[in-house]
Amino acid sequence: MSDASRAVKICLLGFGNVGRRFCELVERKSGELAGDHGVRVLFAAVGTGSHGSLLAPDGLTAAEMLAVAHGGDIDLMLPDPPRPGTELIAAAGADVLVEATPLDPLGGHAAIEHIEAAFARGMDVVTVNKGPIAWDYRRLADIAAANGCGFRFEGTVMDGAPVFNMWESCLPGCRLLGFDAIFNATTNFILDAMGEGRSFADALTQTQADGYAESDPSHDIDGHDAAAKAAALANVLMDARITPDAVDKESVRDVTPERAAAARRAGRRLRVLCTAFAADLPAQRAAPGVRASVRLVELAPEHPFFAVGGSSLAVILHTDLMGDVEVAELAGLPEQTAFAVYSDLLALQRGR
Amino acid sequence: MSDASRAVKICLLGFGNVGRRFCELVERKSGELAGDHGVRVLFAAVGTGSHGSLLAPDGLTAAEMLAVAHGGDIDLMLPDPPRPGTELIAAAGADVLVEATPLDPLGGHAAIEHIEAAFARGMDVVTVNKGPIAWDYRRLADIAAANGCGFRFEGTVMDGAPVFNMWESCLPGCRLLGFDAIFNATTNFILDAMGEGRSFADALTQTQADGYAESDPSHDIDGHDAAAKAAALANVLMDARITPDAVDKESVRDVTPERAAAARRAGRRLRVLCTAFAADLPAQRAAPGVRASVRLVELAPEHPFFAVGGSSLAVILHTDLMGDVEVAELAGLPEQTAFAVYSDLLALQRGR
Repeated sequence: MSDASRAVKICLLGFGNVGRRFCELVERKSGELAGDHGVRVLFAAVGTGSHGSLLAPDGLTAAEMLAVAHGGDIDLMLPDPPRPGTELIAAAGADVLVEATPLDPLGGHAAIEHIEAAFARGMDVVTVNKGPIAWDYRRLADIAAANGCGFRFEGTVMDGAPVFNMWESCLPGCRLLGFDAIFNATTNFILDAMGEGRSFADALTQTQADGYAESDPSHDIDGHDAAAKAAALANVLMDARITPDAVDKESVRDVTPERAAAARRAGRRLRVLCTAFAADLPAQRAAPGVRASVRLVELAPEHPFFAVGGSSLAVILHTDLMGDVEVAELAGLPEQTAFAVYSDLLALQRGR
Repeated sequence: MSDASRAVKICLLGFGNVGRRFCELVERKSGELAGDHGVRVLFAAVGTGSHGSLLAPDGLTAAEMLAVAHGGDIDLMLPDPPRPGTELIAAAGADVLVEATPLDPLGGHAAIEHIEAAFARGMDVVTVNKGPIAWDYRRLADIAAANGCGFRFEGTVMDGAPVFNMWESCLPGCRLLGFDAIFNATTNFILDAMGEGRSFADALTQTQADGYAESDPSHDIDGHDAAAKAAALANVLMDARITPDAVDKESVRDVTPERAAAARRAGRRLRVLCTAFAADLPAQRAAPGVRASVRLVELAPEHPFFAVGGSSLAVILHTDLMGDVEVAELAGLPEQTAFAVYSDLLALQRGR
């Protein structure tokens, strides 16, 4: 560690797959963080729902923090009892909140509360929890701006594949006219299995057995996850000011074996497609002008998304100046969402 | 124009499709450039090979410059006789060289000379001419660094689709292990037509008639254009230090009607695929460690590039931290290369 490097203290809420892999990535990259970016990342607090908490206002290195956290991925145990996220935020004296708690599909209220508490203390925020961006982006972004805080959320859509950051850094002056996207991997797996001739129920069981669907999979199956991501993207890049409730949804439950078989015979693939478009383009508009939907479509091999199955995700951004630009993540993994936190953290440091 | 905006004077070499559309884009965006970026873009010199030149060291706005340039896309005529690029660079007193002269497939010597002349005067450089990046990147980048000059080249590969800029801004700390790409539109069109049952000669004639192939198309057909782009990407993102000569090439001339018919019957598509991979990953290596090739492949519908035809181009970046990330430009147009210059220009201003 060079003396010139600056400590950046993190309050990490949520220590599942993504949170833990983020710590591992920080540990692996600690030399590069200090040498190339002049940053020493320290953990001042870590909170979980039922696996304890850790409070260390002086800050632990990633290596120290991982040593304190006992056990493997499942048996994680932090030394102190669980505490509310807002309490940890208040006590940690951290510079950055990393919000990685599990999604609350009904509106992300806890995560929103965490983010507001962080902004109130002048902290920057990186969230991989999509709830706040899907349900309450405009208000939170305004609070961040008023308090001079950074607010980043690359990991909320398509894991770590650059979407928000690409738009911000690489497509200056473009207007987003709309987008098409495949944002949900679970339904990819289910529809892939149905494309091989299985019923919906069999396909779901298989996808659960393979670890790609939750025991309660309705959030994915009925389009809520995809709708939240579509709302997040529309809110940030199109100033849509919509919530996931406003997104028309179709469920893969409604795919009959007959429909799947007919698609297969025609050489097509069923996919859950997210679409958004600006229904009115004038700059001044009173009512929300973006329509978004999550629907079942049959794609021919000529469609750019025909090959987007399994844990691959993709978006086509329809822009005014740069035409149609596609970004895809092929075979995504939790490491890639952890990378999103890492890249957002570096973007915050560049912005300082 | 706000008083706070700063003049950025351009010396533009090459005033074809891209150069002209860049001027039109600057004109269209002049309010945004001043308001959002604090920049007034002025043209201090414009040079062409045979359509005259223009020298205005005080700088013309884009609107003034376009008014001075007579005629339409073809009949462009600038008021002064043609002058060597280096003479214009010396006389213009500009801040930024935009190198948009036609590619010299044999090594890009003229463009390299222009870029060196600009760096010698402390100017930043934006090039859409891929020659210098394909043939001489390392040396030019070192000169830029030694002279404190910016050096950007987004438009050299995949028009304005974010590749170099995405890597720089959005994938911090990643290592590029290799890439697969479709970088040449002309051969896409030819192979699309052969996929419909035409001979190579017929397909070429059709592609020329449609305006997607030059009257001397060998640069595209024999893989030189794709090899130059592959070398450029490998040189910048993998420190490959190779030239296009080092890229193994196959020509679409070698596709027999029988091979095309067999691919079609199998439901596959012929494509010209650029591939590069790090043959040795140790950080210290004496000899170039990147192998690159341009070869004919048959792609099944499951391949992400199956749908990449016509003027669509795509690359899959194989990274260590973020897995495989694909970027594609769907149905590219010259406006999009002009956008690359525009986004590079803004990136230079951010870096100042």
